[in-house]
Amino acid sequence: MASSLMALPPLLGAVGLGFAYLLYTMVMKYPEGEASIKKIADQIHLGAMVFMKREYSILVVFVAVIVALAWMFLGASTAIAVVTGALSSSIAGWLGMYAATKANVRTATAAKGEGAASALTVAFFGGSIMGLCVASLGLIGLGGLFWFLGGEVHSLEGFGVGASSVALFSRVGGGIYTKSADVGADLVGKVEAGIPEDDPRNPGVIADNVGDNVGDVAGMGSDIFESYCGAMIATIAIAATMTGVTGQAELLILPLVLASVGLISSIAMIFVVRKRSDQAPAAALRTGTLGAPLIFVALAFVVIKAMGLGTEIWLAVVAGAVGGVIVGLVTEYYTGGAPVVKIARSGETGPATVMITGLAVGMQSVVLPLLAIAGIVFVSTWLAGLYGVGIAAVGMLSTVGITMAIDAYGPVADNAGGIAEMGGMGKEVREITDSLDELGNTTAAIGKGFAIGAAALAALAIIAAFVETVSHHKDGFDLELSDPQVIVGLFIGGTIPLLIASLTMTAVGDAAFDMINEIRRQFREIPGLLEGKAEPDTAKCVDIATQAALKRMMLPGTIAVLAPPLVGFLISPEALGGMLAGGLLGCVLMALMMANAGGAWDNAKKHVEKGNLGGKGSPTHAAVVVGDTVGDPFKDTSGPSMNILINVMAIVSLVIAPLL
Amino acid sequence: MASSLMALPPLLGAVGLGFAYLLYTMVMKYPEGEASIKKIADQIHLGAMVFMKREYSILVVFVAVIVALAWMFLGASTAIAVVTGALSSSIAGWLGMYAATKANVRTATAAKGEGAASALTVAFFGGSIMGLCVASLGLIGLGGLFWFLGGEVHSLEGFGVGASSVALFSRVGGGIYTKSADVGADLVGKVEAGIPEDDPRNPGVIADNVGDNVGDVAGMGSDIFESYCGAMIATIAIAATMTGVTGQAELLILPLVLASVGLISSIAMIFVVRKRSDQAPAAALRTGTLGAPLIFVALAFVVIKAMGLGTEIWLAVVAGAVGGVIVGLVTEYYTGGAPVVKIARSGETGPATVMITGLAVGMQSVVLPLLAIAGIVFVSTWLAGLYGVGIAAVGMLSTVGITMAIDAYGPVADNAGGIAEMGGMGKEVREITDSLDELGNTTAAIGKGFAIGAAALAALAIIAAFVETVSHHKDGFDLELSDPQVIVGLFIGGTIPLLIASLTMTAVGDAAFDMINEIRRQFREIPGLLEGKAEPDTAKCVDIATQAALKRMMLPGTIAVLAPPLVGFLISPEALGGMLAGGLLGCVLMALMMANAGGAWDNAKKHVEKGNLGGKGSPTHAAVVVGDTVGDPFKDTSGPSMNILINVMAIVSLVIAPLL
Repeated sequence: MASSLMALPPLLGAVGLGFAYLLYTMVMKYPEGEASIKKIADQIHLGAMVFMKREYSILVVFVAVIVALAWMFLGASTAIAVVTGALSSSIAGWLGMYAATKANVRTATAAKGEGAASALTVAFFGGSIMGLCVASLGLIGLGGLFWFLGGEVHSLEGFGVGASSVALFSRVGGGIYTKSADVGADLVGKVEAGIPEDDPRNPGVIADNVGDNVGDVAGMGSDIFESYCGAMIATIAIAATMTGVTGQAELLILPLVLASVGLISSIAMIFVVRKRSDQAPAAALRTGTLGAPLIFVALAFVVIKAMGLGTEIWLAVVAGAVGGVIVGLVTEYYTGGAPVVKIARSGETGPATVMITGLAVGMQSVVLPLLAIAGIVFVSTWLAGLYGVGIAAVGMLSTVGITMAIDAYGPVADNAGGIAEMGGMGKEVREITDSLDELGNTTAAIGKGFAIGAAALAALAIIAAFVETVSHHKDGFDLELSDPQVIVGLFIGGTIPLLIASLTMTAVGDAAFDMINEIRRQFREIPGLLEGKAEPDTAKCVDIATQAALKRMMLPGTIAVLAPPLVGFLISPEALGGMLAGGLLGCVLMALMMANAGGAWDNAKKHVEKGNLGGKGSPTHAAVVVGDTVGDPFKDTSGPSMNILINVMAIVSLVIAPLL
Repeated sequence: MASSLMALPPLLGAVGLGFAYLLYTMVMKYPEGEASIKKIADQIHLGAMVFMKREYSILVVFVAVIVALAWMFLGASTAIAVVTGALSSSIAGWLGMYAATKANVRTATAAKGEGAASALTVAFFGGSIMGLCVASLGLIGLGGLFWFLGGEVHSLEGFGVGASSVALFSRVGGGIYTKSADVGADLVGKVEAGIPEDDPRNPGVIADNVGDNVGDVAGMGSDIFESYCGAMIATIAIAATMTGVTGQAELLILPLVLASVGLISSIAMIFVVRKRSDQAPAAALRTGTLGAPLIFVALAFVVIKAMGLGTEIWLAVVAGAVGGVIVGLVTEYYTGGAPVVKIARSGETGPATVMITGLAVGMQSVVLPLLAIAGIVFVSTWLAGLYGVGIAAVGMLSTVGITMAIDAYGPVADNAGGIAEMGGMGKEVREITDSLDELGNTTAAIGKGFAIGAAALAALAIIAAFVETVSHHKDGFDLELSDPQVIVGLFIGGTIPLLIASLTMTAVGDAAFDMINEIRRQFREIPGLLEGKAEPDTAKCVDIATQAALKRMMLPGTIAVLAPPLVGFLISPEALGGMLAGGLLGCVLMALMMANAGGAWDNAKKHVEKGNLGGKGSPTHAAVVVGDTVGDPFKDTSGPSMNILINVMAIVSLVIAPLL
């Protein structure tokens, strides 16, 4: 039974990719609009491709080093797996970015010519392509590799290292890029040159718009891809250690089968959302978020039973799927509910109280998601041991197709708004894109919470696989908390998230500085630029900002990759285990705190800008703008870096586990 | 040998208390100054006593409940120990506060009549009384109890619960009080009524000055007292489980003997600092910070050898003493060195960059202290097992007499400045008190770092004792990190520090609101107050602020006390162990981050106020003031609460360990 299923995941992945292409052709049928609009859109599209090319050209070197090391110490199969993982994630990111930057202008034009319903369709299809690419390429890459490698499960872990390398560059480098481009463009344009936001004379404006795609489409995609494949790899690795258990073959293939089922559920829901979105867009998106897990768990029950596995396995899957929804809903509350109004009100007494209230909200927002994750761990291990944790993570992540679709819809709508503004498409178009964008912000908050919860559970599964693998190779290995080695590791692991958060927050300012110098240079050296008689060199700005960001991600990236071998080899595997536990805890706490505080500050600003508490231009508005400015690197740079950090550390540890 | 040493600690404690009285008489010989000055000082003194009375009257009820529970479930000896611990800490706090609020006015008057050297002497003696009271009452209380109880070591742990209860009220309640009084007085006085800071017409000004003593004298004292005794209790508890080890009797008494040696070193250094302070005050205080551990480890070597114990025990003590100094020096760098200038510079681009830079500095500042603590754990357990961790903590904390003296000197100098301002004592006096205050800020930063390091190590020792105790009662108990129960506990434990930080930060704003209403009422209802013809009811303000603060510490306090029994009994002892590890990690990270970010923001503001980067009134100044306002609850309320939180959770767990 099990071996006949081997071909299913990559085949279904290919089907998913076909659907993505179908959506792409549907998007491309919408008109691109007038020449002036098309020109702006082309610049954003080309800018995004400049970023990707620059990023991937450094990534190739980075991956080549890892491949060489993997080949030397772990053999050819692992090296091949690393390449496959890196390629799968890169292609998913590239395709998604390509489609998203084609959909944005068509969303704006559809808003003008056909109204809100069509605009929503284009934007949602644009995001769905990214969602389907992530889910499909995960299945093709990992499923294909699993099929190809047959029984040699340990090499599979190389796939995770490849995926994590891409995530490191896309999410950490991209996160630094997006915020430094934003800050640089605003500072020179608005403050120094005195021209409005999104003004086409500003050489940095395209870089800024590219940033939205880089961070929220490609970055988020690589993050989810990493967790998605990480969860499957960890579960397979745990299953591989369960020699002698009945149904081991089925347990080995189950993660890939469930992900296939999840892809089918996602495709189904994409069409449901599309159908319902004409009447009530907000409700339609919510149907997608809640409906896909529902269909998924129903189908999963049938599949698990058909494979002859027990109900307890299915219940663990349900625990993961339900937990993901809970984490998402809690995030929605903290970044959209009463706490946001509270932060906005605290703006009446100045920026300091905005900071205090926002930080307090962020800190409080970690409690329920962490209890939810603890609940999943508790229930799933009680049901099915360590394998339960892994399969729960797979359950949470199987419906990434639709989750990622709803998530990536936001930046497409956001970009459409930017294009409408730059191209002077009128107030009505802007109103439509604004309403789509607002909807996107809420769904993005849920997506971010989901991404953190998923990353945490995936990392936990990988850590469990690490412990199992080391125990397999080393007799008497245990992670006793009263062992000083473990405590030392725990303390080291706890500091790393704070160090990385500190480095990435500082990196935004430093990288923005390079961008600022370039924009200043263009204003100085290109005659007639400020008068609108000459064109800015926008590609150069994108390139400078990309270089600056990638340069500044090297130190945090290196720390993430080197910490596990350093602690593992120089201290002990026990210390490494402790480090992973401390790192996991620190990363989850920081990721949730930063994402939710940042999201809440952002929405508090929007709340005031809607005319509440004095509206735009009031002292309260000035105060909440400070909150939003601090929140930007929180939610778009440092916070998301935490997901990557813990997964990189975990997967590197798992790969080096047999050498320890 | 060992039993003949039993009487030594309480006797030496009595000697230390005698020295404290000697210093008190020396302080009282200095003149109090003119009637108008005396009146202000009396109000602060009485206000401080009002706070203490109000606090202790609620504390009595709280302790009574705990005593009743302890008597019921753990027997009479534990109940007696709780009372002794609470009494010892309360008396130390009361005496220290009493003396500090007598020394402040005499410092101001000495600055006027006799100059800087005399002023420093009075302020330092004022602080030293608190230092000696903490060290001596710890020895009298704990040493006396140990002597009285003889072999019944487990009951001793009740002493820690008593000490922690006082710390909870003094440090958490006091922390909320001090900042809400500050905010309340400033907001109504400066902003609404338009009168200057420290203006005697403001009904809240005395409450504000009382706050400095409440937070930095009594609060800090109870914090250090808790760690000091906690470390000793934990080490004794660990020694008690080492049945069959040669020298067990000596190992049992060693913590108290070392603390006695530390007290002698502290008394010696107090006189050295006094002698050297005429020439170079800064160097003199530094001599005290570094010299006392040096004398201590030398004497400790002699004592340990005389008791027939091995050199490895001594080396563990050295590791603790050296580690404490390192943590202090790192704190000094982050709150006084290049990072401060960097934060001040970031003020040139507004408050948002001040926030980002300050948070980044705070996050980065946790790395080295945590590595230092990890190093202590590593070295001391390698030398002497779990006992090593305990005795290292004792080594770090033995010189609390001088550390606390230098620490408490700061608020005395600060208060002297406030009195000089309120009493119109002239610019020259203010300059002297300002220079003393500045010196105090640096030493206070070192003291705060030390307090966190000490709390962490003490908590770790208590947790180790908890694990040993549970293992003693329950076969097969271990804290395996791959046990889901432990992971669930770890996650729960990690959220608690963030929740408490969130609650305490919010509490400051809420409590300030009650104070604001009272000040507004007085301005409204007392005719002629604003014209200076009537007197404000300052005691009422102190009382209102005290009540408001104590009310708001109930929820965080209850969470800290109830979390261990809830998790321990409802889930499992394994989950409780995991919770303590997660809580410890979270508390240390948050405590360091908040204390150092807060201290750095404070000093960045002072840096600008000295005339750098545009000086007072510039936009840069406005930006760094925002940082300082956010930093206030960070460093004086939420940050210090973390020390208490982890120690309360640890000691409660240790006490309930045999019941699990």
